[in-house]
Amino acid sequence: MSYQAPLRDMQFVLYELLKCDEVLPALPGFEDASREIMDAIINEGARLTQNVIEPTNTPGDREGCHYDPQTKTVATPQGFKDAYKQFAEGGWTGMSAPVEFGGQGMPHLLNTVAEEMMCSANLSLGMYPGLTHGAVNALLGYGTNEQKDYYLPKLISGEWSGTMCLTEPQCGTDLGLIRTKAEPQADGSYAVSGTKIWITGGEHDLTDNIVHLVLAKLPDAPKGSKGISLFLVPKFLDDGSRNTAFCGGLEHKMGIKGSATCVMNFEEARGWLIGEPNKGLQAMFVMMNSARIMVGIQGLGIGEAAYQVSLSFAKDRLQSRSLSGPKEPEKAADPIIVHPDVRRMLLRQKATIEGCRALAYYTVMQLDISLHSEDAEARERADDMVQLLTPVVKAFLTDEGFFCANDGLQLMGGSGFTQDWPLEQFVRDARITRIYEGTNGIQALDLVGRKLGMNGGRSVKRFFAMLQRYMEENPGAPFVTEVKDASSKLQSATMWLMQQGMADGEQAGAAATPYLRLFALTAVAFFWSRMALLAQQQLEAGTTETDFYQAKIHSGQFFVSRILPQASSLLAEIESGKDNLMAMTEAQF
Amino acid sequence: MSYQAPLRDMQFVLYELLKCDEVLPALPGFEDASREIMDAIINEGARLTQNVIEPTNTPGDREGCHYDPQTKTVATPQGFKDAYKQFAEGGWTGMSAPVEFGGQGMPHLLNTVAEEMMCSANLSLGMYPGLTHGAVNALLGYGTNEQKDYYLPKLISGEWSGTMCLTEPQCGTDLGLIRTKAEPQADGSYAVSGTKIWITGGEHDLTDNIVHLVLAKLPDAPKGSKGISLFLVPKFLDDGSRNTAFCGGLEHKMGIKGSATCVMNFEEARGWLIGEPNKGLQAMFVMMNSARIMVGIQGLGIGEAAYQVSLSFAKDRLQSRSLSGPKEPEKAADPIIVHPDVRRMLLRQKATIEGCRALAYYTVMQLDISLHSEDAEARERADDMVQLLTPVVKAFLTDEGFFCANDGLQLMGGSGFTQDWPLEQFVRDARITRIYEGTNGIQALDLVGRKLGMNGGRSVKRFFAMLQRYMEENPGAPFVTEVKDASSKLQSATMWLMQQGMADGEQAGAAATPYLRLFALTAVAFFWSRMALLAQQQLEAGTTETDFYQAKIHSGQFFVSRILPQASSLLAEIESGKDNLMAMTEAQF
Repeated sequence: MSYQAPLRDMQFVLYELLKCDEVLPALPGFEDASREIMDAIINEGARLTQNVIEPTNTPGDREGCHYDPQTKTVATPQGFKDAYKQFAEGGWTGMSAPVEFGGQGMPHLLNTVAEEMMCSANLSLGMYPGLTHGAVNALLGYGTNEQKDYYLPKLISGEWSGTMCLTEPQCGTDLGLIRTKAEPQADGSYAVSGTKIWITGGEHDLTDNIVHLVLAKLPDAPKGSKGISLFLVPKFLDDGSRNTAFCGGLEHKMGIKGSATCVMNFEEARGWLIGEPNKGLQAMFVMMNSARIMVGIQGLGIGEAAYQVSLSFAKDRLQSRSLSGPKEPEKAADPIIVHPDVRRMLLRQKATIEGCRALAYYTVMQLDISLHSEDAEARERADDMVQLLTPVVKAFLTDEGFFCANDGLQLMGGSGFTQDWPLEQFVRDARITRIYEGTNGIQALDLVGRKLGMNGGRSVKRFFAMLQRYMEENPGAPFVTEVKDASSKLQSATMWLMQQGMADGEQAGAAATPYLRLFALTAVAFFWSRMALLAQQQLEAGTTETDFYQAKIHSGQFFVSRILPQASSLLAEIESGKDNLMAMTEAQF
Repeated sequence: MSYQAPLRDMQFVLYELLKCDEVLPALPGFEDASREIMDAIINEGARLTQNVIEPTNTPGDREGCHYDPQTKTVATPQGFKDAYKQFAEGGWTGMSAPVEFGGQGMPHLLNTVAEEMMCSANLSLGMYPGLTHGAVNALLGYGTNEQKDYYLPKLISGEWSGTMCLTEPQCGTDLGLIRTKAEPQADGSYAVSGTKIWITGGEHDLTDNIVHLVLAKLPDAPKGSKGISLFLVPKFLDDGSRNTAFCGGLEHKMGIKGSATCVMNFEEARGWLIGEPNKGLQAMFVMMNSARIMVGIQGLGIGEAAYQVSLSFAKDRLQSRSLSGPKEPEKAADPIIVHPDVRRMLLRQKATIEGCRALAYYTVMQLDISLHSEDAEARERADDMVQLLTPVVKAFLTDEGFFCANDGLQLMGGSGFTQDWPLEQFVRDARITRIYEGTNGIQALDLVGRKLGMNGGRSVKRFFAMLQRYMEENPGAPFVTEVKDASSKLQSATMWLMQQGMADGEQAGAAATPYLRLFALTAVAFFWSRMALLAQQQLEAGTTETDFYQAKIHSGQFFVSRILPQASSLLAEIESGKDNLMAMTEAQF
C-alpha cells in the first residue's frame, strides 16, 4: 500500500482541536485562510505527494546521488528533478512566503501540513525545498532591500534553492570553533574561504542556482561564538559567472541517500554580509528555529508513513490464531492484528503520531499568531509557547518517529528487515532527524538551559497555567486524572531544576534529556485529553463517524495507560542528580 | 580504534562473579576447564577476532554477497573465506562439541565468550558457524549413530556448515502453516520439495558441503504444528553428486549484508528423517534454544563494539566547554566526555552491556551445569534457570544491543550517521537480532505463556528465592534496596499474570513485552548488586585495580538510578490490562 495522506486526522486537528479556520482568518494577512481554501490546498498536496513524490522514494534510496569529480557537480536520483519541478510549479516552495516576493502568503500551519505529507512521501527530496525556507527566513529577517528583491523571488518560486553552511570538520555543535574566513573586498563584497561539511543540497541539479548562507569570521573578529558573521554566497553570480564555491564530494550515509550531503569548498568565493558583522549566530538562529520545527515534522511524517505500511501488513498477514479463539476460522490463520502485542506496536505508533501531530500543529499555529496578531500581548503569549515548545517538538517527534518506524519494522518481522518493504528505509532515514539541526541532547539543553528561565520562567508558567485552566474547566474530561498526575510530576521536576540546575550547570545537563521527554509526554497527554473530550462530545451528539471518534478515545486511553506512566521513571531519573554521571573519572570508562 | 576484546571484564564475570574456574572443573568432562586453559583460549580468541575477523567487517558490509543465477551459487565478500578458514582451523567451530566427534569438549560458557568476541568483530561472518551449532545439536540429540558418525566430524571441524530451514513465504512464527513436503522413497530416504526463505548460509563458498535441516510434512501428516518432521538434506550426497537443493536468490536486507540470506528451493531433494515422524518441532526447539541464547550474545557483542568506538570518539572529539568550567583550557574545546548528557549515553551502554554480560554468562554456565552435573537435582535447578532466562537473554540483550548502538551513534552526532564510522552498520546489523530466532514479542510470550507456569511455577519461584537469599545474606550490599523494590514489583507483576493471564490468554499477551523487560531489569540489577559488592570487597582489601573496581560501583549506581526506575512504569503498563489494546476494532485502526 502506498502512502495516503491522513486527511481526516489532519482536519480533526486543524479545525476541531485548533479551530484554525476561526483563529487564522481573524489575523491580518490570513483573511483568505478559510477552511475551504485550506482544504483545497491540502487535498492538492495529498494528490501531489501520493502520486508524484512518493513513487520516487524507494528508487531514490537505491540509486542515491552521484558526484562527478571532474565537473564537481551532483546528479540527484532519477525522477527527483521532475518531481521537484511539479512541486515548485504548484507553488509549494512559496506557500507561506510573503506575497510581495511572489509567495502565497498562507499560514505556516498550512505549510507544515504540506511538509508532513512531503516527509511521509520522500524525506530526501523534501529536504531541498526545506533548506530553502531557512535561507528565505534569514533574508527576510536580515537582508537588505536589494538582497531581498534580487534573491527572494527566485528562492520563493523554487527556481533557486538555499543552503545553511554551518558545520566544519572541527565544529558541529560548538560553532565558536569556526575557521572559515571572510575578507572584505573593495567593492563591498567579501572573499569567503574555508571548508564546510554536511551541507544538505550544497550541490545538485534541481535548480538553476544555489544560494549558500555561510557562517564565517571576519578578520580580527572576536574569538568564539561572538565573532561569527553570516554571508550569502551564490553558486552563480549575477553576471552568470560561476562563483568559486565547489562541492568537494558527497557523504556516504546510513539514510536519506537521495539528499545530497556535500563537502563544500569556498575558495575566495564572492559573498555578501547578511545582517550585522559578528552577529551571524543571531541570524542563523532565525533559520534554525523554523528548521527545528520542520525537523520535528520530518519525524512525524516518517512515523505516519511507517504506521500506514505496518498497519496494512498487520491486517493482511495471516499467522497463528487469536489467543481468544480463531477470528477467521475459514482462513489458514488469523491476521496478526488480532494479537495484543502486535496491537501494542500499532497503537504505540498511532497514539504517539496523532498526539504529536496535535502538539506540532498547535505550536506552529502559535508561530503564526506570534507573527501576525495585532495584539502585542497575544503575540508575546504565542511566542512564549513557540520558544518553549520548539525544542520539545524537534526532539520528541524525531525520537518518536524513529521509534515508530522501528515498531513498524518489528511487527513485520523478517519482512520489515528486507528491502522488499519500505520500513528499513524509514528507520535509516528517520535516524538522522534525531541528530541534525542540533542533536536532541542539544534541544534538551536548550529547553532547560535557555527556555525554562527565559523572562523569569514566564513561558513555562504560562504552559502550566494553560493545563491548569483546562483541568479546572473540564474536570470530567477523559484522562484529566492522568494529565494532573503527569503535570504535577513535571512541576516537581521543574522545581528541582530551578533549585539545582540554576546553580550548577551540570545538574541541568544531567536532567535535560529525561526532562524534555517528561515535558513532551505531559504536553501530548494534555492534547489527548482534549481530543478525547471532543470525540466524546461528537459521539454524544450522534455523529455518524463513530469509528473515527471512538478510535480517538481508545488511542488516548492507550497513551495514558502505556506511555504516560514513564513519567514516574523519568522524574526519578531527573531527581537522581548528576553524581551517577559525573563521579566516574574519564579513565574509568 | 579497532575492537579490543574486553578481556578484563570477561574475566571478572567468569572468575570473580561466577567462579566458573571452581564450578566447571568439578563437573565430569570439564576437568580441563581450568582458569589457565580458559584464559589461554580466550586470549587466542581475542587475537583472532581482533586481527583476522574484525578487518573483514566493514568491507563485507559494503560488498555484500553475490548470487550467480547461472550456477545458483553464492560468493561471500572478499576475505570471508580466508577468515573463516583460520577460524575453523583454530578449532573454534568445535569448541564445545563432544570430543568423540572431534570437538574440544569445552564448556558452552567458553564458547559463549568466543561468540561474543566474534559478534563484536563481524556479526555476518559469525552467523555461518553459529548456524552450524544448531545442526550439530539437533544431530546430537536426534540423529542415528550412522548419521552422527558421518556428519558430525565434518560439521564440528567446520569443513561443512549447517542451516536451519524453517520459514516459508506464508509461515514464519506460525510453523503449523508449513507446506514443504517429504515423500518416502523405497531406499528409506525422502524426496523433499518446497520453498524456504530467509535461510542463513543456505548457499555460500566457505565450506565444501552444506547440511540443511529442513522442517517438512510427511504425506497424511496431522494438520498444524503436530504434523511437522525434521529432515537432513545435504547439498552434496555421499557419492559426491549434487542434491537438488538450490539457492534461488538472496534477500536484500537492511544489515548483516555479509551473511547470505537465501531463498532455498528443494526440488525432490534427497533427505533423511531426523528423529521421529511428526516430532520435528521438538528437535527444532533443541536447535532454537541454544540459538536463542546465541542471538542474545550477538546483541551483547554489537553493544560492546559500539561502546568502544563511541567511547573513543567521546574522548577525542573536542567540542564546547564543560558546564563546570574548562577542563582542558589549553585546547580549543573540551573533549565531549565532560558533558553529562554524553556520559548518560556512554553509561547507558557500559552499564547495560556489563550487566547483560553477567546475566548471559550466568545463564550459559547454568546450561553447562544442566548438561554435565552428576547431581540430578543440580541439573534440574540449573535447567530451570536456563529455561526461564533464555527468552529474557534473547530479547533483552538484543533490544539493548540495538539501543546501545543507537546511543553510540547519537553521541557521535553527524559522524555516527556517516559510513566513515562503523556505528551506522552496528545499528543496521543489530536490528535483525530483535527479530530472528523468534521475534522479541514471541520471546515475551514464551516467558509468560510457557516458562512462568512450567512445573507449577517452579523456575520463577527458584529465581525469586535466589534473589531473596542473596538479599538476606548481604543486607548491606550496594543497591540491595533498589533490587528489593524491583523484585517486589516483579513479584506483583507475576502475581497479576498468574491471576489474570492464566484464565485469559490475551491478558498474558498484553502484559508479555513489558513483563519480560521488568524481569530483565530486575535480574540485571541483582547482578549489579553482586558485582558492586565484589568490587567493594576488592577496594576494601586494597586492590591496585582501583579504576576497574570503582567503575563497577559507578556503573551499577547508574543502572539502578537511571535505568531500573523504569520498573514502576512497566508495572503500571502490565497492570493496565488488555482493554487498552483490544477494545479498538480493526476498522478503527
